[in-house]
Amino acid sequence: MLSRIRIVLVNTSHPGNIGGAARAMKNMGLSQLVLVDPAVFPSAEASARASGADDILANARVVPTLEEALVGCSLVMGTSARDRSLPWPLLDPRACASKAVEDAQAGGEVALVFGREHAGLTNDELQRCHFHVHIPSAPEFSSLNLAAAVQVLAYEVRLAFLALETSVPAAPAEPVAELATAEELEGFYGHMEAALVDIGFLDPEKPRHLMARLRRLYSRCRMERTEVSILRGILTETRKAARGEPYKRKD
Amino acid sequence: MLSRIRIVLVNTSHPGNIGGAARAMKNMGLSQLVLVDPAVFPSAEASARASGADDILANARVVPTLEEALVGCSLVMGTSARDRSLPWPLLDPRACASKAVEDAQAGGEVALVFGREHAGLTNDELQRCHFHVHIPSAPEFSSLNLAAAVQVLAYEVRLAFLALETSVPAAPAEPVAELATAEELEGFYGHMEAALVDIGFLDPEKPRHLMARLRRLYSRCRMERTEVSILRGILTETRKAARGEPYKRKD
Repeated sequence: MLSRIRIVLVNTSHPGNIGGAARAMKNMGLSQLVLVDPAVFPSAEASARASGADDILANARVVPTLEEALVGCSLVMGTSARDRSLPWPLLDPRACASKAVEDAQAGGEVALVFGREHAGLTNDELQRCHFHVHIPSAPEFSSLNLAAAVQVLAYEVRLAFLALETSVPAAPAEPVAELATAEELEGFYGHMEAALVDIGFLDPEKPRHLMARLRRLYSRCRMERTEVSILRGILTETRKAARGEPYKRKD
Repeated sequence: MLSRIRIVLVNTSHPGNIGGAARAMKNMGLSQLVLVDPAVFPSAEASARASGADDILANARVVPTLEEALVGCSLVMGTSARDRSLPWPLLDPRACASKAVEDAQAGGEVALVFGREHAGLTNDELQRCHFHVHIPSAPEFSSLNLAAAVQVLAYEVRLAFLALETSVPAAPAEPVAELATAEELEGFYGHMEAALVDIGFLDPEKPRHLMARLRRLYSRCRMERTEVSILRGILTETRKAARGEPYKRKD
């Protein structure tokens, strides 16, 4: 079940951190590592710091974009400093871990995303996340080492996993509606943006954070696949209307 | 108060781990580091990994024995693998942290003791501890990196500290974005229904639970007032497009 929770490291500069992250993962029973465009990999330094977690490094997937790293994921959570100009649903590590474990238990694929050593995740990357996660830290020295941040979240994931294991066998899980994947959501946002331009609501020259605000709203909903279909149906008809195509209703 | 909780590292081999531990401590608001007979200290590698937590390293006390490191402490807790031949009161990191913070709050001096990278603490050293602490980990790969172990306990100490801080006086609530009222939501749903009829997506003769599904989606979001305004702006433009009214964009 923990194999449905992947750790995604974006543009990591120091291979030692990749190794440290791999070790932290294996210590906590996680196995799926995805590296988005790492500066150096594979590397002897990564292997040294992995210190026995070589299998995690050997099986790591290296992909060019965050988008590819998130394919198939129905829950994406990204680590973030607290004070962003754009407020977003924010979880602490414990709540993040319990959501991750619940979703993985229900059959979903979950991604925990970590940004660059110095710059973190970009706003664009953060907007692909359903939730942001902030690790509580001293305000005057708040930036954790990357492998240490992976350790904290992986530790909380293990606690949540153990709590689930030892809890009384739950009543048969309610059938969970199938959630939209990351790429389905991206398709939806692209479709919406085009429709908003068509009807003149979005000026591509002056976008004014409109798409970011809409992403923030719909991320919060954790949309189901059928809901995305309904909204895309509406967008298709909206675009037709904007083009002046009459609709056919069976009267 | 956190200055009464010291981190004690016994016979550390790798100076990088001392630096990593210092950074983890400073991230979590801890400041007192005591090194018992370290293999190499000070060291450029420790400073590099401390990455800004140089003050912790500069103020670290180096002592020859664990006994000296523990002078003045009324509570000593040592990290340990789970299965020792010698049974001892065993805490998980969360319980350890809350004991540490309670005692420090009450004026006590507390030590969290970490052993050697490969061999941990000896039985003799463990017997100087009031409690042992075990960090839950995967049984087949259970040994955490030393700095990672310090990170996990320091993180739990910070959570316990924050819980104590916020428990006494009710913290001033974070400004919450203003949520839409029930009547604003009803106005939105009515507006949406009209627009969907206009573009031909909703047939009033055969509504097929469409509005119910949309209500379910948007209810889940707990929409803010400004979000409802944005969506209603989109609906207004959609209705204009459906009536064939050209939009005016300032080019």
